[in-house]
Amino acid sequence: MGFFSLVESSLEKVDGLLSQTLRQENALVAEVSDYLLRAGGKRLRPALVLLAGQFGPAGEALDTGLVTVATAVEMIHMATLVHDDIIDEAAVRRGIPAVRRQYSNPVAVLAGDFLFANAFILFARSTNVAIVDLAAQVVNVMCVGEIAQHRAQRQFSSEEDYWRRIEAKTGYFLEASCRLGALASHAPESSREALSRYGHYIGLAYQVVDDLLDWLADPSKLGKAVGGDLAVGIYTLPIIYARSQESYRKDLDHYLLSEGVLDHMQTIKDILDVSGALDYARQRAIDCVEQALHYAGQLPEIPARLALQELAQFIVARDY
Amino acid sequence: MGFFSLVESSLEKVDGLLSQTLRQENALVAEVSDYLLRAGGKRLRPALVLLAGQFGPAGEALDTGLVTVATAVEMIHMATLVHDDIIDEAAVRRGIPAVRRQYSNPVAVLAGDFLFANAFILFARSTNVAIVDLAAQVVNVMCVGEIAQHRAQRQFSSEEDYWRRIEAKTGYFLEASCRLGALASHAPESSREALSRYGHYIGLAYQVVDDLLDWLADPSKLGKAVGGDLAVGIYTLPIIYARSQESYRKDLDHYLLSEGVLDHMQTIKDILDVSGALDYARQRAIDCVEQALHYAGQLPEIPARLALQELAQFIVARDY
Repeated sequence: MGFFSLVESSLEKVDGLLSQTLRQENALVAEVSDYLLRAGGKRLRPALVLLAGQFGPAGEALDTGLVTVATAVEMIHMATLVHDDIIDEAAVRRGIPAVRRQYSNPVAVLAGDFLFANAFILFARSTNVAIVDLAAQVVNVMCVGEIAQHRAQRQFSSEEDYWRRIEAKTGYFLEASCRLGALASHAPESSREALSRYGHYIGLAYQVVDDLLDWLADPSKLGKAVGGDLAVGIYTLPIIYARSQESYRKDLDHYLLSEGVLDHMQTIKDILDVSGALDYARQRAIDCVEQALHYAGQLPEIPARLALQELAQFIVARDY
Repeated sequence: MGFFSLVESSLEKVDGLLSQTLRQENALVAEVSDYLLRAGGKRLRPALVLLAGQFGPAGEALDTGLVTVATAVEMIHMATLVHDDIIDEAAVRRGIPAVRRQYSNPVAVLAGDFLFANAFILFARSTNVAIVDLAAQVVNVMCVGEIAQHRAQRQFSSEEDYWRRIEAKTGYFLEASCRLGALASHAPESSREALSRYGHYIGLAYQVVDDLLDWLADPSKLGKAVGGDLAVGIYTLPIIYARSQESYRKDLDHYLLSEGVLDHMQTIKDILDVSGALDYARQRAIDCVEQALHYAGQLPEIPARLALQELAQFIVARDY
């Protein structure tokens, strides 16, 4: 992704610190870590930390601190993916079998905990407890959100609930990634606020698009199965919108609540299409990106601002 | 336990802060937390934080900080129990069904993560990153130890491996609990070192006795099933010692490697008894307690020292 070129060399340092931190004497830990690292990932969150970190004063110590925080952020993300795959009984992640499948649920539980622990060891290096606190809040918010989502499985909810859920799942983490970068680089208060709002809105847009891609993507590009939400009974924005229309609700519910719901995926997708639900969701994502761009516009005109603006536009354009 | 009376009122504050932290708007989170809190527990680790915290200068702010760290330490412990029960497929914990049984594996994964996150939110309040770092190291060491133990299931190991394993599982956490208390209360360096060594040795003694109780305890007192280690193929000190004797090894291996090993529990226990393995393990625990008392003896003569000495002696005397 071109807009990451500005922080390319720092992202390479993130990858280096990731390997270094996860390389362990224990053979199984090393193997699982290596497995996770090879799987790659978009590195969106560390890139946000690094880009947000450009709005403070420059300095070598600040840059090292920023790379440390960015690495820790990616480790938190990896930990939540490994644990989420246990919860969702997912088979594939980042294009390869999920850790729980390749190894076992116990190994996945421990690998996630190991990643959390090592993330906080890195956060502690920042010598700033505000950074530790914010990182811990991210994990807390995501857990509470996941528990709520877990409980809401196979239950229809309102659009308001949906926005609350994706804020907990993604919005808060992307907001926090920006804020952590701003904190670690001592960016001024005005930039910190604009970066946080920017992160919040691209987080929401990112998750709405993610939920759309669960209907529309090519699985080989996505790196995981499509229809995953449907399979575990998580109803996202397109379903919620289509159901809000009297004329489609009954039909939709018939298929959603039937046995072997995945066999009806194409039929359900057709209903989402004709009801305008897919267009509606895409439009809401575009609205969020516009909000994000509004806040990015409040930032000083440095190259990182352009990168953030391009990143926001990519989020609705992506197909993986 | 009488030796906790010195810090009784602070332990009550720990329970209060635990409830307050875990009480959440989310109904399921609140329910699981409440379930965990009602299960109780010995509160050994927070008590160590509080007792170790008596060796620094007194002060209201220090006391509040100490209670915060003690609470966070108990939350880390609760998180590891909830996750360990997934790994060991345990049915009962602290006398009631394990979270994974009462709810489900997904809820147990998330409840553990939620406890970790909230523990680090509390650690961050200490405004001392050395505290955050040490707490994260505890989780890291325990994960690496658990992964090693998981891989070593149904494999015979040396006594040296056993000591390394219990150091990771318990020794390091009890050592860290003492060190965290010393750090939070600004205890002088000399006390910090003696407290750490004390914690290390009572940790080892505690785990050796725990492993013995898995053979000898009354399940209703223990709050979990006996024979749990045997059931998942974890061979502890008594087995390792008995197998080190040529005359018992063959017989023992026959029963250990047979189908339905738990049906042979009494026979195996008899072999451990006549081979002197149970006595040997108890004596090693007593040796560790003596080491702990040696280090406690280096501490200033304040009431907390006596409490730590009594606690060390209780550890080998307990039957639950």
